[in-house]
Amino acid sequence: MKNVAVVGAGLVGSLQAILMAQKGYNVSVFERREDLRKAKLISGKSINLALSDRGWKALELAGIAEDIRAISIPMHSRCMHALDGSLSYQPYGKEDQAIYSVSRGGLNQKLMNLADDYPNIEYFFDRKCQDLELASNTLTFNNTKEKTTEKHVFDRIFATDGAFSAVRMRMQKSTLFDYSQKYLDHGYKELVIPANEDGSHKLDKNCLHIWPRGEFMMIALANLDGSFTCTLFFPMKGETSFETLKTREQVGGFFEKTFPDAVSMMPTLLDDYFDNPTSTLIMVRCTPWNYQDKVLLLGDAAHAIVPFYGQGMNCGFEDCTVFDEMYKQANGNWDGLLDRFSDQRVPDGNAILDLALFNYVEMRDLTADPDFLLRKKIEAKFSNLYPEKWMPLYSQVTFSHIRYSDALKNGQYQQTIMDQVMQLDDIHQNWNEPFVMEKMLALLV
Amino acid sequence: MKNVAVVGAGLVGSLQAILMAQKGYNVSVFERREDLRKAKLISGKSINLALSDRGWKALELAGIAEDIRAISIPMHSRCMHALDGSLSYQPYGKEDQAIYSVSRGGLNQKLMNLADDYPNIEYFFDRKCQDLELASNTLTFNNTKEKTTEKHVFDRIFATDGAFSAVRMRMQKSTLFDYSQKYLDHGYKELVIPANEDGSHKLDKNCLHIWPRGEFMMIALANLDGSFTCTLFFPMKGETSFETLKTREQVGGFFEKTFPDAVSMMPTLLDDYFDNPTSTLIMVRCTPWNYQDKVLLLGDAAHAIVPFYGQGMNCGFEDCTVFDEMYKQANGNWDGLLDRFSDQRVPDGNAILDLALFNYVEMRDLTADPDFLLRKKIEAKFSNLYPEKWMPLYSQVTFSHIRYSDALKNGQYQQTIMDQVMQLDDIHQNWNEPFVMEKMLALLV
Repeated sequence: MKNVAVVGAGLVGSLQAILMAQKGYNVSVFERREDLRKAKLISGKSINLALSDRGWKALELAGIAEDIRAISIPMHSRCMHALDGSLSYQPYGKEDQAIYSVSRGGLNQKLMNLADDYPNIEYFFDRKCQDLELASNTLTFNNTKEKTTEKHVFDRIFATDGAFSAVRMRMQKSTLFDYSQKYLDHGYKELVIPANEDGSHKLDKNCLHIWPRGEFMMIALANLDGSFTCTLFFPMKGETSFETLKTREQVGGFFEKTFPDAVSMMPTLLDDYFDNPTSTLIMVRCTPWNYQDKVLLLGDAAHAIVPFYGQGMNCGFEDCTVFDEMYKQANGNWDGLLDRFSDQRVPDGNAILDLALFNYVEMRDLTADPDFLLRKKIEAKFSNLYPEKWMPLYSQVTFSHIRYSDALKNGQYQQTIMDQVMQLDDIHQNWNEPFVMEKMLALLV
Repeated sequence: MKNVAVVGAGLVGSLQAILMAQKGYNVSVFERREDLRKAKLISGKSINLALSDRGWKALELAGIAEDIRAISIPMHSRCMHALDGSLSYQPYGKEDQAIYSVSRGGLNQKLMNLADDYPNIEYFFDRKCQDLELASNTLTFNNTKEKTTEKHVFDRIFATDGAFSAVRMRMQKSTLFDYSQKYLDHGYKELVIPANEDGSHKLDKNCLHIWPRGEFMMIALANLDGSFTCTLFFPMKGETSFETLKTREQVGGFFEKTFPDAVSMMPTLLDDYFDNPTSTLIMVRCTPWNYQDKVLLLGDAAHAIVPFYGQGMNCGFEDCTVFDEMYKQANGNWDGLLDRFSDQRVPDGNAILDLALFNYVEMRDLTADPDFLLRKKIEAKFSNLYPEKWMPLYSQVTFSHIRYSDALKNGQYQQTIMDQVMQLDDIHQNWNEPFVMEKMLALLV
């Protein structure tokens, strides 16, 4: 029972392949696309990733964290760009805490190269998953290069084939599988702020830049080459939307009016806008994530979420570490292992989905709201004074390994407390007075 | 643009075929199974249907209502069977109102026979839908008898292929299609109370019989041959569940204890229990129900619901009448027609799903609750006095053509009023006093 398939050679698939190889399994990794290490990098299609603690833990488990740290850029704060060009900063956590901008392609390549060092991992590219026969654990692939069909039988199958998972689509037809997919009303488009001529960054590279505009926003994350990858998150339809911005004139006028400080740094804006696709954002929940002791969904295949908490990849990597821990706890005994994993992990997938969705409102709207910013300041002060009593929700999600479902509950409780604190007289004047801290202490009892 | 496909020759598909043929279209109906008129009727797999006003309206539109009335049995009341065998009755509506027990197979045959009278309708059986290419409106079928593959192109496609719709599965892969499927924790099993030797019914045939038992229930609907089709709705897992009732002894003991008055009328209970499958109950929501002006989901393919309001078929039939009305309003112009249909109809599909789910609790639990029964009595009295001010929710759903989404809202409003009425002093003694009616009048202002 040592032959394992991984369907999907993305970030989570390659990581899981390594972790299973380390346990002594023979791992076959099937990927729909060609080997991305031989392909030209396709831009305009992928949001930059923000690696944080949950992701790092998994990379450490795979022994690759230091390699990745070398190609990542720490971001210590949000930097908000107001309409008048003024900047305000909000630290993500304590001084030594940061999230890390990293290229999806670069990270994926590193993981694949590391996997190639294992003699018991083999990659098969250009293999489109056509079918999975659950009764016999038989995978059917279309070899898109040779135009042939292949069938393979495995003892265990890990499906890491993303938000539109073919394996999950097959499980959806099996009985008692609950599933939902929902598209956000907003889509996104990738744009770019190129480097200065000397290769330096045009903005502070150690910030995640946000242009919060209420109903929508633009963000920018630094790349190693001095450029920034910008992403416009924007309504698909409606008065101000991708649907209504049709001509170069309309797009130019809109950006001049809405992101005036950015537009001067975006010389290829109009070409990028019309060359790059408008992408949609899907949310997927399902349960269970397994089929008996044979098939397990991991990563986006199990829980596609919106990117606004920077947790999509981090959550997928945490799937792998949690599986690793449970596997070791069970001493490698598979009986009921996948059932138990699914039971434990589904609520966490659902929780981070909800958290990420809400964070869109926070990023595009609340980061420009004085009440919201004050809440964060008061929380940060209290958390510094009483770290054992209060960890801000953002930190729980980003800088801890607290279960997402617990973080969600904690966050809801903290919100009820902060709602009361914000009712205190003249809180905007008095927030730094000791009685505010005392009030919070009293409320927490 | 006159060639229309209907995928699925069930109740809604056959009805829609007739309605489109009446409009002058050439209609091809594709069905996965063999012609049910030539097949042996398979029992043990289908809950008896309760036809009500929305269904009748559609049958009248197709000119078949009288034929069906002749093979249906009116049910004027619920008849609740208590554990001690005592019976209590609750009328469904006013004296002349009833829901009608009808056989799914019989109704489907009638609809097919009627469709066969149209020279512009052709049925193709043993055709399993394999794929739908949305860009070209090309349907691919597996001819399961000839073992061949067929491709057909149509101007319009109606998908009436049920809760596990192959067409919908294809639409699910198109962008911005929201979809959810969820299984109820409870499943069902069909059982039977045979006729007396003289062919008469063992119970009042003009009632829908319910054995409400809190967490689960059994129901029975009369057939024309003197028998009753019984359905046990029961948890799939847990302490008392399909999973735990394993032996003939356990099943016999459970029925003796739980349905003592019924068990004496069920001589084949144990054989039926183990011969008939345990079926699951799925709920499906999606939006939109259309793909451009080309493909439209109708019936269970668009909105699979639980059977507890007796509205699954009625809602599907109403889809057809609403489409018919909108088509006529648009004078047969398809531009935007399916978009408008979907926009209007999706909220109604969602509403009846919610209503049906809640009605399970009502049927299995509340029908044995004195407070609930009193509410119904007070509502009925008030509704008789002020019919223009109050129509009970059950009547709105069953005996009216009020949109389901409006009925749901009305019902929620009525509940807030009844909550207050039930707070009146000694309401169980005083419910028939004039001041109760006056209070309701005052609350409604």
